[in-house]
Amino acid sequence: MQGQSQQQAYDRGITIFSPDGRLYQVEYAREAVKRGTASVGVRAEDGVVLAADKRARSPLMEPESIEKLHKADDHVGVASAGHVADARQLIDFARRQAQINQLRYGEPVGIETLTKNITDHIQQYTQVGGARPFGVALIVGGIEDGEPRLFETDPSGTPYEWQALSIGSDRNDLRDYLEAEYEEGISTDEAVGLALDTLAQSNDGELEPDGVGVATITVDNPQYGELPADEVEGILDERDLLATDEDEDEADDDAESDEE
Amino acid sequence: MQGQSQQQAYDRGITIFSPDGRLYQVEYAREAVKRGTASVGVRAEDGVVLAADKRARSPLMEPESIEKLHKADDHVGVASAGHVADARQLIDFARRQAQINQLRYGEPVGIETLTKNITDHIQQYTQVGGARPFGVALIVGGIEDGEPRLFETDPSGTPYEWQALSIGSDRNDLRDYLEAEYEEGISTDEAVGLALDTLAQSNDGELEPDGVGVATITVDNPQYGELPADEVEGILDERDLLATDEDEDEADDDAESDEE
Amino acid sequence: MQGQSQQQAYDRGITIFSPDGRLYQVEYAREAVKRGTASVGVRAEDGVVLAADKRARSPLMEPESIEKLHKADDHVGVASAGHVADARQLIDFARRQAQINQLRYGEPVGIETLTKNITDHIQQYTQVGGARPFGVALIVGGIEDGEPRLFETDPSGTPYEWQALSIGSDRNDLRDYLEAEYEEGISTDEAVGLALDTLAQSNDGELEPDGVGVATITVDNPQYGELPADEVEGILDERDLLATDEDEDEADDDAESDEE
Amino acid sequence: MQGQSQQQAYDRGITIFSPDGRLYQVEYAREAVKRGTASVGVRAEDGVVLAADKRARSPLMEPESIEKLHKADDHVGVASAGHVADARQLIDFARRQAQINQLRYGEPVGIETLTKNITDHIQQYTQVGGARPFGVALIVGGIEDGEPRLFETDPSGTPYEWQALSIGSDRNDLRDYLEAEYEEGISTDEAVGLALDTLAQSNDGELEPDGVGVATITVDNPQYGELPADEVEGILDERDLLATDEDEDEADDDAESDEE
Amino acid sequence: MQGQSQQQAYDRGITIFSPDGRLYQVEYAREAVKRGTASVGVRAEDGVVLAADKRARSPLMEPESIEKLHKADDHVGVASAGHVADARQLIDFARRQAQINQLRYGEPVGIETLTKNITDHIQQYTQVGGARPFGVALIVGGIEDGEPRLFETDPSGTPYEWQALSIGSDRNDLRDYLEAEYEEGISTDEAVGLALDTLAQSNDGELEPDGVGVATITVDNPQYGELPADEVEGILDERDLLATDEDEDEADDDAESDEE
Amino acid sequence: MQGQSQQQAYDRGITIFSPDGRLYQVEYAREAVKRGTASVGVRAEDGVVLAADKRARSPLMEPESIEKLHKADDHVGVASAGHVADARQLIDFARRQAQINQLRYGEPVGIETLTKNITDHIQQYTQVGGARPFGVALIVGGIEDGEPRLFETDPSGTPYEWQALSIGSDRNDLRDYLEAEYEEGISTDEAVGLALDTLAQSNDGELEPDGVGVATITVDNPQYGELPADEVEGILDERDLLATDEDEDEADDDAESDEE
Amino acid sequence: MQGQSQQQAYDRGITIFSPDGRLYQVEYAREAVKRGTASVGVRAEDGVVLAADKRARSPLMEPESIEKLHKADDHVGVASAGHVADARQLIDFARRQAQINQLRYGEPVGIETLTKNITDHIQQYTQVGGARPFGVALIVGGIEDGEPRLFETDPSGTPYEWQALSIGSDRNDLRDYLEAEYEEGISTDEAVGLALDTLAQSNDGELEPDGVGVATITVDNPQYGELPADEVEGILDERDLLATDEDEDEADDDAESDEE
Repeated sequence: MQGQSQQQAYDRGITIFSPDGRLYQVEYAREAVKRGTASVGVRAEDGVVLAADKRARSPLMEPESIEKLHKADDHVGVASAGHVADARQLIDFARRQAQINQLRYGEPVGIETLTKNITDHIQQYTQVGGARPFGVALIVGGIEDGEPRLFETDPSGTPYEWQALSIGSDRNDLRDYLEAEYEEGISTDEAVGLALDTLAQSNDGELEPDGVGVATITVDNPQYGELPADEVEGILDERDLLATDEDEDEADDDAESDEE
Repeated sequence: MQGQSQQQAYDRGITIFSPDGRLYQVEYAREAVKRGTASVGVRAEDGVVLAADKRARSPLMEPESIEKLHKADDHVGVASAGHVADARQLIDFARRQAQINQLRYGEPVGIETLTKNITDHIQQYTQVGGARPFGVALIVGGIEDGEPRLFETDPSGTPYEWQALSIGSDRNDLRDYLEAEYEEGISTDEAVGLALDTLAQSNDGELEPDGVGVATITVDNPQYGELPADEVEGILDERDLLATDEDEDEADDDAESDEE
Repeated sequence: MQGQSQQQAYDRGITIFSPDGRLYQVEYAREAVKRGTASVGVRAEDGVVLAADKRARSPLMEPESIEKLHKADDHVGVASAGHVADARQLIDFARRQAQINQLRYGEPVGIETLTKNITDHIQQYTQVGGARPFGVALIVGGIEDGEPRLFETDPSGTPYEWQALSIGSDRNDLRDYLEAEYEEGISTDEAVGLALDTLAQSNDGELEPDGVGVATITVDNPQYGELPADEVEGILDERDLLATDEDEDEADDDAESDEE
Repeated sequence: MQGQSQQQAYDRGITIFSPDGRLYQVEYAREAVKRGTASVGVRAEDGVVLAADKRARSPLMEPESIEKLHKADDHVGVASAGHVADARQLIDFARRQAQINQLRYGEPVGIETLTKNITDHIQQYTQVGGARPFGVALIVGGIEDGEPRLFETDPSGTPYEWQALSIGSDRNDLRDYLEAEYEEGISTDEAVGLALDTLAQSNDGELEPDGVGVATITVDNPQYGELPADEVEGILDERDLLATDEDEDEADDDAESDEE
Repeated sequence: MQGQSQQQAYDRGITIFSPDGRLYQVEYAREAVKRGTASVGVRAEDGVVLAADKRARSPLMEPESIEKLHKADDHVGVASAGHVADARQLIDFARRQAQINQLRYGEPVGIETLTKNITDHIQQYTQVGGARPFGVALIVGGIEDGEPRLFETDPSGTPYEWQALSIGSDRNDLRDYLEAEYEEGISTDEAVGLALDTLAQSNDGELEPDGVGVATITVDNPQYGELPADEVEGILDERDLLATDEDEDEADDDAESDEE
Repeated sequence: MQGQSQQQAYDRGITIFSPDGRLYQVEYAREAVKRGTASVGVRAEDGVVLAADKRARSPLMEPESIEKLHKADDHVGVASAGHVADARQLIDFARRQAQINQLRYGEPVGIETLTKNITDHIQQYTQVGGARPFGVALIVGGIEDGEPRLFETDPSGTPYEWQALSIGSDRNDLRDYLEAEYEEGISTDEAVGLALDTLAQSNDGELEPDGVGVATITVDNPQYGELPADEVEGILDERDLLATDEDEDEADDDAESDEE
Repeated sequence: MQGQSQQQAYDRGITIFSPDGRLYQVEYAREAVKRGTASVGVRAEDGVVLAADKRARSPLMEPESIEKLHKADDHVGVASAGHVADARQLIDFARRQAQINQLRYGEPVGIETLTKNITDHIQQYTQVGGARPFGVALIVGGIEDGEPRLFETDPSGTPYEWQALSIGSDRNDLRDYLEAEYEEGISTDEAVGLALDTLAQSNDGELEPDGVGVATITVDNPQYGELPADEVEGILDERDLLATDEDEDEADDDAESDEE
């Protein structure tokens, strides 16, 4: 690791290597991901679960307009963390890829194929000049050939497959929690619970129904679907995660304004 | 947060990430928004209200030439804050998008769709080199499927939906005021009053009829319309917001010359 | 406001934002405008008046070759201040726009429409890389639907409508003078007098017939026309503004050589 | 060799020569290769063996999603070290080249031809501006005209043929080991053992079946094939390389996150 | 005016504004003009006169190859000062414009029209990136509608009309001389004398016939023509401007090698 | 010659001149050539000889994969020194030029013509921006109209014809040796001996058969051919140049990894 | 004149003006010319003579491969000094121009026309970005309409006509010699002698037949022809310029390697 002034030399203009073989613009884009609120993905025996912290900056903001969970295709969902506007570009790209695949081959795109389409697109922005990398990470989850699959894309354009993972703020703490609590073979319902437990780790153990989004896709019903707020509230209550009124916990405005 | 000299390193050439994951050019564009006079949007039960502080820099300037409120389509209005010339570009873009939608699908463009068209356009200017970001924020309000909708676009290209919001100078103070005073289910008339009350917060509690613009679009009459000056004057008088002659309060010339 | 060395960081390469949200290249272009001699526009009840200080740098220079007043179309005149060569580009652009409008719609272009065509063109040079902003401000005056209209374009690409205004050197002093002396409803003849009185403010109260240009467009005769030198001399004499021989007052050569 | 501040001067913008004739961006790309976990290639009498260290960063990550071994064509495999996303670009390029060759000439592409197609592609990114070099090295192995062949590509775009080699972290130590242990004429099975022995050198002499990948292509069966995990486990056990549970040895997360 | 180090900041890359609204690259191009030997233009009652100092750097150089006077069209001549190679580009441009005008309208191009064609071309090189401004000034003289006209183009692209002017080295001194000596209504012959008197001011009052060029275009004979050396010698002798042999006065070689 | 910090100023961006008229990027490319192992060319009465030091960095590396000798056409060979990947680009270019010549004119390309095709191609990379110069020198040898010809290309793009020459490391010492030992009229066999004697100068007087390559093209048999290793061994033995086992002399790995 | 650090500021990127109106990249290109060995041109009554110092850097280098004299067309020769590879580009350009002229007009190109074609081409490289200027000067000599003509092109793109001139190293000394010794009306034979006498000034008064090239084109036989070495030897002997064996005088290798 080098000092501050060293780093600056490698930040100007296009994305280039530093003497120790790093791509600083890519690493700084990872920092942009960490500035965003957390998202969590959990793969169950019979489905995948995506959950996201979407606390509003103000009670006047519509929580549903905070874009953290996205439907990429009937059978594929995406959770994002980091720069929202960048995420929208990648989701649009993913949707077009899914449509093209459907048109060409007459069948739904594979989750792995779609993820690698996205990461190859991301990689271009880290090698060719004239643009900056994408400041966003995605969790891509869905059903492929009757199997639940769960992938991650990061700003370098590397794809990874996970049993369960978190992206965004407090990433390492949430991953530790997942590593400790995750068990293979859990059901989708249990996975929803685990995902909410995990998100609550970065919120003093409490969540508001409006401030969290949960989506599931199951083997039996491979259709992306978001849980209604009252259902989420019920689960939170049941798991003793429901925030009390005094705890109303809004994100700071200026510090994270573009990385909700 | 870093010191001054650090920041400079990330400001040159195209928009790139700083070590802590920020896009400084985008954050500086937000400062350009704050340099503009305030605009306010309020969603009512039966319509949306846009209001803008459009004080002239000189009594010789025609107040109606200060472009803060814009009709984007019959059923969509836009209020802006920040760099006026940039706002004009985005309004033109929005109008073309609305026309294309009408031509393609034979129906008025949705407010959410239009907003996201705009924000995706804005995002391009923050990622691809050869241009600077847009130094302007917009409030996009209108009627969609019989429902009032109210959105914000910021220089990063992120869309948000609001019940009520302010952009431009004194943003945080005005938002605090809105959060305290806004109530769900208010009528459009009440929303006009709230919008003017809010704008008055950044003007020592007083407004001049010529120095403020108000537009409404209602569910019953989904047509963008600006209130005539005498009607505004009546409302200001009624709410005890009318500036007396001695208070004639003109904006400083040089400091904010391009961000009226 | 920041120190000298700070500013430098934002001046290199393309036009980008400074930390406080300014576009320095645009602000420096405004300085180029201030380096030019003054122009004045006054809207009368029945016409518009454009007047410009066009003192020659040498008695051997032909005053009429100093381009400060321009005919953009039969019914539209333009007065400029700042970088002369840049002004010529914008005037050419305006003339083409006026012709295109005439060809497409079979009627003279509106003054407001023409002004906004120009400002949108100017804005492009402040956002897209590879060129510098225009270092010139324009006063666009003419008759539209039987009404006199008077607009300003500045280097940021913002349009404003005025009753009376000045651009170029001593702008603030001349505007103060106009604010004090202008009265609504004055005739075109009175407006010519006011325009010359105003210009004289930046010339020790005196003007030479050769060193000043005056153009009028009236509702009754919507044709751009410049006043002949003897007529100007008569008006100056009448208003006691005529320079005596000893006062022969030439502009400095080197300091303002390209911003006459 | 020069000091730190000297080097910086040659890192900006495109890849250019330093005074001592080096291309620093290429050398820094070599550092990116060293940051990746090791891969090993061994040429046997009757086949080639590729082996790679693919330890996961977390027990929740699917080891098979860590892309270190790739099938380029039926008869060609590739092992990579360094920037994963860059490796994917080169593998895609290699696959297209192999297909084109098959289509044009009706026969499988030669291993040497394919390698040189790749290195010529890599070279372009070191000479022409507007992009950075590839931060990855490849081992290309396969059967050509009944003979096993084994090549290396490095970030400069130079092709080399080897009897046995390693790329990635601990390169020099592993090469010393191979130079000492490699014998001409060994069988593919012996080569698999040598490859695992070598990889174990950079893992305290132990490997986990999940954390290592092995692929072979033989003269008798010129089809790329990866060994199943239980077969790998058997071999590790036999050679006393099997990690015990306490040794569970995960790679650090942040330090090498993009160079698995 | 600012210090040295300040200026440097605005000289790099494309032509941009300095904080005080100057275009330094244009001002430095003016310095290139001053480095060239002087040219003079005088408008007479019945013609225009162009004269140029074309001293050779060596007695072996052919004086006629020193390009200071150029025929742009039958009725138009151009005298240049500054960067010779740049002047050639502009003369070529002017010749093409004159031909195009002749072809399109069937009549000789106007002197003012031609001058403004040239200055608009020059302006482009001061605003759009990727090239430097022209380092040359031109005097454009000719007969238009039976009237002698005399114009100047400078590196900013501004056109001016003059009765008499000088460009190049010692510009201010020569202009003072012209302002003192020029009289309206002089004949072309008198104008030739004045032009040579003026040029002699920057040569210790003496000129060599070979080191000076004179061209005239008259109303009666609107054909560009250069005076033969013996005729020039006669005039110099008559006006007591003829250099004696000892005074043989050659320009320094290295200092002004490209700005003859 | 200037100090270190001076030089840096001329290394950035495209290839430009230094104050003393040097093209540093070209000179640094020459340093890249010197970092490569030596190649030698000798012109005999009846043929040309190319020889190259191709010691492997490791006993596991296949010596024949070290590309120092190349067949450009049946009757033309090329030896290279410097950046291997760059050499490959130029060899490809040369092969295409030779084929084009054969197709167009129905006869083998001339050695001088081919060389100048290559050097003109090299020159482009030293003058036009957006790429760096080639970091390689070539010896081009062959038979043209029954005569042996021997040329050199350097990174500046200058062609030279030689009787005998060396490129790469220890260039000056080997040239001194050649100047002392070369005699006109020697036979191709004698030239092979001289070439090996010369190469041995930079290897402590000894060579390994595997570590050296020799190619000849003769007037009687104008076909590029490389000598088999046993023949080379015989000659080395005969000339007492054969390395004994203890001397096994491998090139350093890291220092010269891309300039074999 | 300014200090070292000042100059650096104007050397980066494209060719731009310095505060005193210089184009440093052009001036540095002139330094590249001075680094080349000298060439001389002499115009006689009945022909032109080109002579060039073409000493080889090594006795093994073929003197005829040192390109200093070039045939541009049957009736035009060119001598160069400076960067050899750049000279080749300009000669190729000149040859194409000569051919085009022959094809279009059915007659040989004029010497002045051809020279100005070349200088206009050179000028482009000094004004438009993305390339550096040509680091070479040319002497263009030939017969035009039965008259010998002799021109110079320099790196700025300025054409000059001369009676006799030198370019390259020791330029000022050789010009002084030419100014002292040249007489109008000399024969071509005498001009050959003078050219060799002049070249000898920069070689301690002695020349080797192999180290000098002489070409003539005469009015009677307007065909470019180089004198054979024995004829040159005879003339050198006659004029007592023949180098004795001990004086064998080779150019330094490294210092002038690309500017022979």
